[in-house]
Amino acid sequence: MKKRLSSLATLVDGELIGGDGDLVCEGAFPLGEKTVGHVTMLDDLRRVSELNESQAIAVVCSERLESTSMAQIVVADPRQAFTKIVACFRPPVSLDLPSWGIDPSATLAESARIHPSAIIGAGVKIGERSRIMPGVVVLPHCQIGDDCIVHANVTLYEHTQIADRVTIHAGTIIGANGFGYRQVAGRHVPTAQLGNVQIDSDVEIGASVTIDRGTYGTTLIGEGTKIDNQVMIAHNCKIGRHNLICSQVGIAGSCTTGDYVILAGQVGLKDHISLGDQTIVGAQAGVMDDCEGHQVYLGSPATPQREQMQIMAVERRLPEMRRELKNLRRDIDRLIQQSQQTGYATMPSEPISIESCSKRAA
Amino acid sequence: MKKRLSSLATLVDGELIGGDGDLVCEGAFPLGEKTVGHVTMLDDLRRVSELNESQAIAVVCSERLESTSMAQIVVADPRQAFTKIVACFRPPVSLDLPSWGIDPSATLAESARIHPSAIIGAGVKIGERSRIMPGVVVLPHCQIGDDCIVHANVTLYEHTQIADRVTIHAGTIIGANGFGYRQVAGRHVPTAQLGNVQIDSDVEIGASVTIDRGTYGTTLIGEGTKIDNQVMIAHNCKIGRHNLICSQVGIAGSCTTGDYVILAGQVGLKDHISLGDQTIVGAQAGVMDDCEGHQVYLGSPATPQREQMQIMAVERRLPEMRRELKNLRRDIDRLIQQSQQTGYATMPSEPISIESCSKRAA
Amino acid sequence: MKKRLSSLATLVDGELIGGDGDLVCEGAFPLGEKTVGHVTMLDDLRRVSELNESQAIAVVCSERLESTSMAQIVVADPRQAFTKIVACFRPPVSLDLPSWGIDPSATLAESARIHPSAIIGAGVKIGERSRIMPGVVVLPHCQIGDDCIVHANVTLYEHTQIADRVTIHAGTIIGANGFGYRQVAGRHVPTAQLGNVQIDSDVEIGASVTIDRGTYGTTLIGEGTKIDNQVMIAHNCKIGRHNLICSQVGIAGSCTTGDYVILAGQVGLKDHISLGDQTIVGAQAGVMDDCEGHQVYLGSPATPQREQMQIMAVERRLPEMRRELKNLRRDIDRLIQQSQQTGYATMPSEPISIESCSKRAA
Repeated sequence: MKKRLSSLATLVDGELIGGDGDLVCEGAFPLGEKTVGHVTMLDDLRRVSELNESQAIAVVCSERLESTSMAQIVVADPRQAFTKIVACFRPPVSLDLPSWGIDPSATLAESARIHPSAIIGAGVKIGERSRIMPGVVVLPHCQIGDDCIVHANVTLYEHTQIADRVTIHAGTIIGANGFGYRQVAGRHVPTAQLGNVQIDSDVEIGASVTIDRGTYGTTLIGEGTKIDNQVMIAHNCKIGRHNLICSQVGIAGSCTTGDYVILAGQVGLKDHISLGDQTIVGAQAGVMDDCEGHQVYLGSPATPQREQMQIMAVERRLPEMRRELKNLRRDIDRLIQQSQQTGYATMPSEPISIESCSKRAA
Repeated sequence: MKKRLSSLATLVDGELIGGDGDLVCEGAFPLGEKTVGHVTMLDDLRRVSELNESQAIAVVCSERLESTSMAQIVVADPRQAFTKIVACFRPPVSLDLPSWGIDPSATLAESARIHPSAIIGAGVKIGERSRIMPGVVVLPHCQIGDDCIVHANVTLYEHTQIADRVTIHAGTIIGANGFGYRQVAGRHVPTAQLGNVQIDSDVEIGASVTIDRGTYGTTLIGEGTKIDNQVMIAHNCKIGRHNLICSQVGIAGSCTTGDYVILAGQVGLKDHISLGDQTIVGAQAGVMDDCEGHQVYLGSPATPQREQMQIMAVERRLPEMRRELKNLRRDIDRLIQQSQQTGYATMPSEPISIESCSKRAA
Repeated sequence: MKKRLSSLATLVDGELIGGDGDLVCEGAFPLGEKTVGHVTMLDDLRRVSELNESQAIAVVCSERLESTSMAQIVVADPRQAFTKIVACFRPPVSLDLPSWGIDPSATLAESARIHPSAIIGAGVKIGERSRIMPGVVVLPHCQIGDDCIVHANVTLYEHTQIADRVTIHAGTIIGANGFGYRQVAGRHVPTAQLGNVQIDSDVEIGASVTIDRGTYGTTLIGEGTKIDNQVMIAHNCKIGRHNLICSQVGIAGSCTTGDYVILAGQVGLKDHISLGDQTIVGAQAGVMDDCEGHQVYLGSPATPQREQMQIMAVERRLPEMRRELKNLRRDIDRLIQQSQQTGYATMPSEPISIESCSKRAA
């Protein structure tokens, strides 16, 4: 699907500045997702420098930008306008019901094998030797590469892109709406969920995994990454290459991981966290801050292993420490008493607060 | 389905006291679920005062109650009798297989659209403009309102009630049996799971969510509440209005939440917990006690934010605290030794227990 | 499926020692899974004594064993050879698509009831009065006993074995590949996942549960055990009898539990953990070490209840303890100062490290 710049500007009632209205756009993506020939959006003027690294041909923005030579569509509310533009490239999910069986507009490689109970939507492409098992639902405009296996009862929402040699186990859901709401008059109103999910080559995904679509852009699973059962990956995440993500891990929205990251079972990541290459996070840890790579993190909040091990070692001795504290107080009070009896001191024998202590000292 | 009081009394071999046997009952619900014209049960005599607030027309109980004017069905074992009565209004799940496609007894609005691979059971009702996607299984006697979307491969168990403008994402399971067992002769025997699930208007439910049916009554999701992927809500929960329940939260049986409650990712609630309006619980927290509303709770066990932040700040300094404890002991022992040398003290130089210390003091 | 010993030796290019090549093998299982008439493997010479307890008729090993009279197939790489042998008894999952509906080679009891939308693969057996609900996919060579209920949209992978009176709720996935990889040239290569899952009688399994197949052998769920929604049980686990496993529990690979074990909600078990009979683990606990039975464990890392309760009680008082530590330091410094002023001491007034303290003492 292609749109002329002028028609996009008209669509959102915007002013087209510094660009040829006949230029053809091939899609709409947020800043930072480098795709040639697309429209992007600037909703935070502090990110204006990122426009220069972008390969976009136009930007939707709220005021005329002097620091870029890129074509601009100037509107009052860039988010709202961009939502409209994205929606004309990738319509919101499921406005239509797919037909029964394989849609006539789907393109299936000759050696691909589709179980007759699977549903294959309009415009779907499936590569050589890929197998689609019973009960699988592939919604319109998904692409599946060569040598993939999609196991029983999997659901792929619209526009999901799957590269080659990808295995997806039963019951997994790819591309459902992200969990994004804003409050309007006491009600939670869903924000745009117009993006999609892209799974790179040699990825393996376990059973009952959920990976949500991006808000405007793409939730990405990097090449060679392996994901265990019941993992949750939220909207806009960019998972690196050759990660190992163990069972029941939950990754909140807009997180990024480097390459060779390992997340053990039941780990949780706060939203917008970034993990460096070769970060390892121990089971049940809760990651609250960015982690540099090449290191092991444990605990909740996750802390470098060395520190956390020391903390945990002391935690086990807490009851003993509390007893020792009482002993120390007892001993010290006795010493104070003695020194008072011998006339040396003016110290109180009861525990006192730091404040009262300072006052006395003064 | 309607039953005369006299036939219910006969069914459970009970004595009907103070009521007209010809009165017609329309259902059976536990105390506290206010439904007009139903039968209720009293299995704990301390709750007898709640009968006055009930709009039930009869109560199943183990002895004649003087303090109520409500009709009574007196039996030896009220739970067992009530199970029988509930079961004649809502038979246990899945005794029958639905037919292929849409059951002739289902009532579908003209503008409702049902994918041909979906299974629609007997007595199901589906409202205007609602869409049922591929692979969805709607078991008998479910009701779905107007403008709902039920995504692919969702399962709705018998008697699930869904209001208007509800979205349910792929793979979600609503109305499976609650996890309730009692031990009999070394084996776990399932308790009655005869209730249902009710989803109010404008609720959105993510992918791979599970919400279990009530034991006798209803598991309720309040209006406008949004539920993320892989959330688990157990039997008999009453979730309030406009809650935000993030991914992988687990809520055990019989919990209640107020309005505008927010539960962050991977939070767990113990059974029978009550959260006040606008309670916020931080990620991975474990709630062990009721929480008053209008406050943030963190940690496991969950504690008000202020307290928990102080605890966590100190936890990070535990190794340092332990070193300081050792230093204090060293310093104090030296002082004791000095005072002994100078003849002032009788203090032991080794750490001593509080008990031995008291004895010495005495 | 049966194979002669000599043909297995030829298959893996191995030397057959001390056995009759015409002996017939009926399967291949790892050491410790006692099955009569099968081939086993020894990949760790320290486990050679276990061969005597085995009922295998031959062992695949890397060198000639003197301490056993069992027939031996000697090869360079026993794991690789054993993988080949297992694969000829249980081919890797899903090489073939099942046919539409019920495969002609399936054996269904006369009173079994199969929904017409269910897929029943080749060689499947289903017992008396068992019911298979809509959208269920039963892959080839599964066995289901009498009086079972398999709810909607469940997937059973190849070779899953289910005994009598088993209930499996909607959306559950049994027998997907385990999460096992080894790194080769910077890529994660899946290890063999050729085993299966065996569910014993009277087990009940909730909705959206995942139980992975064994690597070579069997992942086992013992008789009478009840499993709640969204539980994850990894490859090679042996779950005991009459366990109660609550919602969102995650059990990593090769764990074993005794009888009457209870795991509360969101508990995690590290791989290769063993829990004794009647172990109880509290909600959200993380089990890092084996637990003897007949005891309650809490916390992460899981610790016996008595200890953990003491630790948690002190944790709540950490801020107070830190204040007291500061008070003690203040008091002691004042005492030291006094004793210095009166000429008794040589103590430093600043906190000092243990090391510097020892040096001074020396």
